Amino acid sequence: MKSLDPILKPRSVAIVGATPRRGSIGHELMKSIIQYEYNGKLFPVNPKYEFIHSIKAYPSVQSIPDPVDLAIIVVPKEHVLSVAEDCGKKGVKGLVVISAGFKEVGGEGEEREKALLQLKEKYGYRIVGPNCMGIINATEEVRLNATFAPVQPESGKLAIMSQSGALGVAILLAVQNINLGLSYFVSVGNKADIAGIDLLEYWENDERTQVIALYLESFGNPLRFTEISKRIFKKKPIVVVKSGTTAAGARAASSHTGALAGMEIAVEALLQQCGVIRVSTIDEMMDLVFALTKSPIPKGDRIGILTNAGGPGIMATDAVETLGLRMAVLSDTTVETLRDMLSPESSVGNPVDMLAAAGPLEYEKALDALLTDDGVDLAITIFVPPLMIEPEDVVRKIIEVKERYDKPVLCVLMAEERFLEELPRRFREVPPFYRFPESAVRVAAEMCQYWRWCSRPQGQIKTFPVKIEPIKEIICKHQSTGGGFLPPIEVFKVLEDYGFPVCKSVIVSKGGDIIEAAEQIGYPLVLKVYGEGIIHKSDIGGVVVGIKTPEELIKARSKMEDQCNAAGVLGNVSGFVVQEMADPDGKEVILGMTVDDKFGPLVMFGMGGKYVEILKDITFRVMPVTDIDAWEMVKEIKSYPLLEGVRGEKRVDIELLVESIQRLAQLVNDIHCLRELDINPFIVAPERKHCKIVDARIRVAEKDVY
Amino acid sequence: MKSLDPILKPRSVAIVGATPRRGSIGHELMKSIIQYEYNGKLFPVNPKYEFIHSIKAYPSVQSIPDPVDLAIIVVPKEHVLSVAEDCGKKGVKGLVVISAGFKEVGGEGEEREKALLQLKEKYGYRIVGPNCMGIINATEEVRLNATFAPVQPESGKLAIMSQSGALGVAILLAVQNINLGLSYFVSVGNKADIAGIDLLEYWENDERTQVIALYLESFGNPLRFTEISKRIFKKKPIVVVKSGTTAAGARAASSHTGALAGMEIAVEALLQQCGVIRVSTIDEMMDLVFALTKSPIPKGDRIGILTNAGGPGIMATDAVETLGLRMAVLSDTTVETLRDMLSPESSVGNPVDMLAAAGPLEYEKALDALLTDDGVDLAITIFVPPLMIEPEDVVRKIIEVKERYDKPVLCVLMAEERFLEELPRRFREVPPFYRFPESAVRVAAEMCQYWRWCSRPQGQIKTFPVKIEPIKEIICKHQSTGGGFLPPIEVFKVLEDYGFPVCKSVIVSKGGDIIEAAEQIGYPLVLKVYGEGIIHKSDIGGVVVGIKTPEELIKARSKMEDQCNAAGVLGNVSGFVVQEMADPDGKEVILGMTVDDKFGPLVMFGMGGKYVEILKDITFRVMPVTDIDAWEMVKEIKSYPLLEGVRGEKRVDIELLVESIQRLAQLVNDIHCLRELDINPFIVAPERKHCKIVDARIRVAEKDVY
Repeated sequence: MKSLDPILKPRSVAIVGATPRRGSIGHELMKSIIQYEYNGKLFPVNPKYEFIHSIKAYPSVQSIPDPVDLAIIVVPKEHVLSVAEDCGKKGVKGLVVISAGFKEVGGEGEEREKALLQLKEKYGYRIVGPNCMGIINATEEVRLNATFAPVQPESGKLAIMSQSGALGVAILLAVQNINLGLSYFVSVGNKADIAGIDLLEYWENDERTQVIALYLESFGNPLRFTEISKRIFKKKPIVVVKSGTTAAGARAASSHTGALAGMEIAVEALLQQCGVIRVSTIDEMMDLVFALTKSPIPKGDRIGILTNAGGPGIMATDAVETLGLRMAVLSDTTVETLRDMLSPESSVGNPVDMLAAAGPLEYEKALDALLTDDGVDLAITIFVPPLMIEPEDVVRKIIEVKERYDKPVLCVLMAEERFLEELPRRFREVPPFYRFPESAVRVAAEMCQYWRWCSRPQGQIKTFPVKIEPIKEIICKHQSTGGGFLPPIEVFKVLEDYGFPVCKSVIVSKGGDIIEAAEQIGYPLVLKVYGEGIIHKSDIGGVVVGIKTPEELIKARSKMEDQCNAAGVLGNVSGFVVQEMADPDGKEVILGMTVDDKFGPLVMFGMGGKYVEILKDITFRVMPVTDIDAWEMVKEIKSYPLLEGVRGEKRVDIELLVESIQRLAQLVNDIHCLRELDINPFIVAPERKHCKIVDARIRVAEKDVY
Repeated sequence: MKSLDPILKPRSVAIVGATPRRGSIGHELMKSIIQYEYNGKLFPVNPKYEFIHSIKAYPSVQSIPDPVDLAIIVVPKEHVLSVAEDCGKKGVKGLVVISAGFKEVGGEGEEREKALLQLKEKYGYRIVGPNCMGIINATEEVRLNATFAPVQPESGKLAIMSQSGALGVAILLAVQNINLGLSYFVSVGNKADIAGIDLLEYWENDERTQVIALYLESFGNPLRFTEISKRIFKKKPIVVVKSGTTAAGARAASSHTGALAGMEIAVEALLQQCGVIRVSTIDEMMDLVFALTKSPIPKGDRIGILTNAGGPGIMATDAVETLGLRMAVLSDTTVETLRDMLSPESSVGNPVDMLAAAGPLEYEKALDALLTDDGVDLAITIFVPPLMIEPEDVVRKIIEVKERYDKPVLCVLMAEERFLEELPRRFREVPPFYRFPESAVRVAAEMCQYWRWCSRPQGQIKTFPVKIEPIKEIICKHQSTGGGFLPPIEVFKVLEDYGFPVCKSVIVSKGGDIIEAAEQIGYPLVLKVYGEGIIHKSDIGGVVVGIKTPEELIKARSKMEDQCNAAGVLGNVSGFVVQEMADPDGKEVILGMTVDDKFGPLVMFGMGGKYVEILKDITFRVMPVTDIDAWEMVKEIKSYPLLEGVRGEKRVDIELLVESIQRLAQLVNDIHCLRELDINPFIVAPERKHCKIVDARIRVAEKDVY
């Protein structure tokens, strides 16, 4: 028996704080449970009443004669701890704490939540909440609706978790509108104990649950979330709405739930890597789960569109292109079938426009032709009810045809609201339907994205042979003196030992023999200043390239000193780096890492150079980074064609870049005290021997940060 | 009397093709008109019946004894022309042709449409359609519902035009759902005569109409559309859904309506310049017109959010940031008022989270405090109905408060569908309400965009003194020999005469004295090849920069010849351009123009150089281009900060760029046979004297193209 079973599949439930007072939570909850016809034993607990809703009530949990799996607590916040104590003594295995007044209000509420968690430790039960709106198990075996939302959900395949009670209610109402069946619903509230990852694990092998929908405001443990989602998403799709991602939204979130700010970039990278389908709004979530619970997953992105009206057909076609799907090219057979069957004025290309005269028969035959066509992966039918044709007859035919194929069919029904509202109740097997073409196409795009993820190879985490010991030594030494930026010579040593191609460099102290250093490197060369606090060297004239003679070198150094003086940083100058020239025709890329408090290290790749912050053609990943991830990183930046070679240029050594990203990930994995690392510019050229790291910096924290 | 009055405000209407046969268009249309209680005279026309719907019918239009303003034609396509002839003889002033089978089906349908237009010329009436679904005048004076859509719209402020009949019905149904009042509805169908611009002009000074909504698939005359919209949009907002903008969508559109492809870039530029608010979907259109018809326009973009639930508050706050709005900073007074009034656990920052206990009184007082605050331009109230609080009471209070202020209030009501459906009928003064926070914020963003446009200065079209005559001569000569690319020397002459700063250049023929040319320019210099069909010179090594000596020059030329030979274009080489060196530290921008068949000339500005097609950091405008447009073009590219100067660099001469865009617009305005023009790269630097056009090309058409 799993530790969440007593909560999600309880054989007996106590409602602590049940009352006969109409409109109170204790009353509504009781009513929900009774009306939904819970299959287990129900024990109202309230010392003031002997019977509630004609059911015998008990003065305390301990006074209940039978064993109790789950206690649902709706008493005022001051009494929650004593009730939880009482539950512990009784041997209750799970609590759902609906009462508010905990961490979300700060101060003594926070203390109260801590005390509650101590009781959990003491008695070993699990807790949903506090500050939540309850749970539902909609399976026929259990039928527990322990919420105060005005819904009676059908039994079905969708499991829902909401971090917000209010949005939980909104989601349940929306689910009810389209008569979508639920397996579970859990409002997790403050997530003191049970959070998204517990539920994901619980639902992973739950046979009832085929689609999982999450409304998240924060991640408790993002890396664990990634790990579990990566395992689950191929078995069943996970749809996520994550809010609180902008700075202002996060401020609102932290004042609300006490959650730490989620960094949008990290959230995006994380969700993308673990295969969940992220949507922006609850509306979009509903549209998508409607399709996922009612349809197979498409096996490609070629869309066939069937319509009886031109305008909506155009809108759908526009959306197909805009959202990166493809309009299916119909086979000759399909085109012939359609031409034989449809009125001569119909358009038998894709979109297939059957015109307003098309009735149930035309929809049946044309949809059949589309779904038979191997070039069509998903069909969208658009129907605008004309006079003389019963929408219901068309829908019935569409249902009949779609049942014969293992391809998704999404319907756009531009009909009266009343008809659409009744539809899910009229037809049990109603296909997913939408009021406007764009919604259907957006859903198709999300389904195709999911299909792409599922068919994407897993990827491997490569390990290159590197010299790790000398690096650990360098870093440890640096840590022991308080961390901060590594001196350039050590930065280059670290990168070299990790197999990165770094430019040959010689460090010369302030008064050192720069000419001798230059002879080691060879002309033409680059001169750079270095010193504590001089970060953006080129801003103060601290980089001169293309130095061809010793005279030019001496001149460059003295000019550099003047400029540092003018910028007021001459005192900071520790010396100079004399460096070999990189290929002047190479492309500048950037490789980097930074640490997010919540998400751990993030690895970055993008177009580099001085303007990286402005052009922002970069991409991020959370750890771990597989070879597939590394390839995708390189390919997804906007400037990727520049690396592939345009306008007569040769392709740069992209394999080296992909390898370098993986080497960086390995470094991040080996050394846990990197605060930030920037390799910029990394000059890449067609030939590997011309690819060189020109500059880099590494900041080390005093202790491990991830 | 305006020429559209007989159609939109007819005193008498004939329905040609009226029948008592249920379900037919002739029947439904008749029923709509009668049920909606048309205030004028109605004459069914059908030779088969003496009475239809108990109203006397006539065998032909000519046999009607009274004068007829408008004939609505629903007869089979074969009879439309003879009916139109009959109408002409009777002196009918307007036709609405609902019958299909015209241009949209091609072939003989196209002929039929031409013949119909000839009758229009002959008899001088105006025509809506053919292939449309009718018109509505919902004002109390007229009350004509000549459509077969199952709606009975309220009278109100919104005028609607739809180019698609099906989407017209969908829009009318959506309008009815939120009980929004209409002034007019017109389904324009094939737009044989009356199109969007006629309606815009008609509605411009119509007192009933305060908001205009258009569904467009194509533009008949984009420049006229711009001109009229620019005039109207400050009087009343124009909301547009434009579909058929992607290549595939346009193919679908042209097979459907025979409209030419609308180029997305041109459409976007055009709509942006003429102040219309473009939305993506009908859903979004409804959300926005709901607010525009019910609310004042905001006078700023600072949003105040009031909520009784954390989650939706976070979602709204996220959306505010994402959509470029600002969270209002509440004044100390507001914060104090809120703190005094709300429970101590409430959050009195923005979003103001009053927690679930907040009832009508809290909403009333808190909304009042927000709207009193000068720092709040628009308020969004979010209400998730808790137990014990009647949503209706809260809505009533919100209505009361909002009526006292001249600021928009958008409501998010996350309540049961049933409640929301009844709301617009229960409260006449219902504020615009939405089911989810993101929709409300999106509407707020669109309203703020409209406010920004309205408060943006008009802008002026500058005329610089230029030497136009010699240019006309050059171009004419070139046209007379068949057009094509101008030789480089003439390109530079044209640009110079138009006051652009071009690099000093000397042209040397293939065997000419290159050393002498170099002496005229001075070292260091640039050598470029030129010749017919050599477009991307640098791709074949045809550009060498930084030549410092005569020896280097000779070497460069001979290498260039070798490379041209290798590329197989040596035969095309006409000669070389010896050119002064531009500032190597300057930034490369591009200025250009191209001609869209439908939209005329488009002016472009962006970051230039070799990679302009890859990086696509560019922006377009249709003509005319004002000084304000030119400034906005420069400021809206992503790399604008690079021009402003980052990382210690100086700001380039942006004023020169803005001036150059206007000079280009002037050139485009003066010479009407430019097919394309590219100034790339235009090197810009901090000092004007270092800003130089390095390369450019101009292609001339044989005859005027715009």
